Amino acid sequence: MKKIMNQPENIVNEMLEGLVTIHDDLVYRVPNTNVIARLAKTPNKVGLVSGGGSGHEPAHAGFVGDGMLSAAACGAVFTSPSPDQVLEAIKVADNGAGVLMIIKNYSGDIMNFDMAKELAELEDIKVDFIVVDDDIAVEDSTYTSGRRGVAGTVYVHKILGAAARSGLSLEEIKKIADDLVPNIKTLGLAIKAATVPEVGKPGFNLGDDEIEFGIGIHGEPGYRREKMKTSQEMAKELVDTLSRSISFEGNSFAILVNGMGATPLMEQYVFANDVLPLIEAKGATVAYKKLGDYMTAIDMAGISLTVLNITDPRYLEWLDESVTTIAWN
Amino acid sequence: MKKIMNQPENIVNEMLEGLVTIHDDLVYRVPNTNVIARLAKTPNKVGLVSGGGSGHEPAHAGFVGDGMLSAAACGAVFTSPSPDQVLEAIKVADNGAGVLMIIKNYSGDIMNFDMAKELAELEDIKVDFIVVDDDIAVEDSTYTSGRRGVAGTVYVHKILGAAARSGLSLEEIKKIADDLVPNIKTLGLAIKAATVPEVGKPGFNLGDDEIEFGIGIHGEPGYRREKMKTSQEMAKELVDTLSRSISFEGNSFAILVNGMGATPLMEQYVFANDVLPLIEAKGATVAYKKLGDYMTAIDMAGISLTVLNITDPRYLEWLDESVTTIAWN
Repeated sequence: MKKIMNQPENIVNEMLEGLVTIHDDLVYRVPNTNVIARLAKTPNKVGLVSGGGSGHEPAHAGFVGDGMLSAAACGAVFTSPSPDQVLEAIKVADNGAGVLMIIKNYSGDIMNFDMAKELAELEDIKVDFIVVDDDIAVEDSTYTSGRRGVAGTVYVHKILGAAARSGLSLEEIKKIADDLVPNIKTLGLAIKAATVPEVGKPGFNLGDDEIEFGIGIHGEPGYRREKMKTSQEMAKELVDTLSRSISFEGNSFAILVNGMGATPLMEQYVFANDVLPLIEAKGATVAYKKLGDYMTAIDMAGISLTVLNITDPRYLEWLDESVTTIAWN
Repeated sequence: MKKIMNQPENIVNEMLEGLVTIHDDLVYRVPNTNVIARLAKTPNKVGLVSGGGSGHEPAHAGFVGDGMLSAAACGAVFTSPSPDQVLEAIKVADNGAGVLMIIKNYSGDIMNFDMAKELAELEDIKVDFIVVDDDIAVEDSTYTSGRRGVAGTVYVHKILGAAARSGLSLEEIKKIADDLVPNIKTLGLAIKAATVPEVGKPGFNLGDDEIEFGIGIHGEPGYRREKMKTSQEMAKELVDTLSRSISFEGNSFAILVNGMGATPLMEQYVFANDVLPLIEAKGATVAYKKLGDYMTAIDMAGISLTVLNITDPRYLEWLDESVTTIAWN
């Protein structure tokens, strides 16, 4: 393992210190926690909290800011934040109008965020939540019952963040979230595994000529391992498989091409060039496009494709609105 | 070699197609060229052109847009764009007030941009240029006479872009550029080499426990190879070496922590956390900070540190101004 770090057990703490030092105009670290919160408060607006294990940077702290998240609870690498950490995020996010938690569907996250909700309710904070389960690759997985939550979560941050900024109530935002999440589907692939710093070796092994489709963002198994493919073949596999979970024909989509952490932009753009015509060939319109590292898996090389069916025209308006965060521009 | 691509010889063309498809609200590709230009024109303002070999994404096309570059000429991977390509960039960038070219100091770039300048002058376009040579690692190198131009070039794009937007003349911008460049110093390191797609194997070999200080953004040799270090030790080496080329004591700096393409944000933030106190311990004030992948070397793992001595208070204003580009937010 070669990483730019000091002691592996301090990596999250040092990362968070670096993050708030670099971005001290936007965010701060709530003292004695691993919670990153926005500096600018929004009285009487619903607060949005997300978080999860670290290693997915810029998710989620990179999306804390005006128009997106109020706070992010950052766990150890690939490990859910504890309920007391999530509680701290809820408390700092609450502006008197309640808090919605955006949870990626992993059993540990569900359990800890739910416990935090109960603790917050004891302190008379109104809390609701949405579980994002956009990964269509597999049903049930290493850390998950049902479908995993992956890169599509970033679109949930953006859309609900804009909705919250507009002054909608917690009940209204929860309703939007319930409608939104089933319209988001993601599928990814890896060509190189990630290495958790505390572990020191890759989470799985892929041969020099192998690719795995449907991999999770913690290196959970996908649905098929094959010999290495061209970008065009990868794009076809992902679009075809997505088309069995969502109806492209006649619909309008927002897409997200997401790098997994060690995938150069050059490769992401080549892949985007292959993906877009395939989606349009399915009869869909691509109304919104985004590309880059949004939900990574430490140093995994790979890519994911997220498609959001714009069933509500407000999704597009909310995606388009400008925000002040570290990582969404 | 494992890359998300099709034929290696088509990778730049397909990358540019993907880029203009994803970002069709900001930029376009000048027909039959490898030039990326901004959609919004600025009559009577000086145009800024940059470019160079591809493989440094988001540089330079990611910095085309209002407030930064007018156009970028994109060569083959790690290969200078030809004079006719640079000429096309100059022509599209010219709004009647002349064009300044921002050139990283590589012999091929100097030669081809200079020829393009001569060709443009034959068409009565006023052209001047600035050569960026911020890399303090080595004097003369594989492709360079003098110091190499690396990540500090991005700060030149930003500062001169803001100056151009403010309506300054070509002569005034050239004067600012001449004053600016000697105040920018960069030093980098690599822990894993990059692989050029058309070559298919890493440009150099580093052992599993080795690090190289002073590496260039095309994998040119650095000044010392050592056993792997901690982030703190890396930070100390870079800051100490930079302090021999620039005077920290009593001065105010903009810093840029730059990822080389395959370095996760987690590691970049850990490094930033180590670097900042060391710079302040040298008696400097850090007035502006930026971190992320700005000037990469394909899939190299590594990092660079750029320091800009803010000898003119306008540098800070110009850095702070908001712009509309793909990659600067």
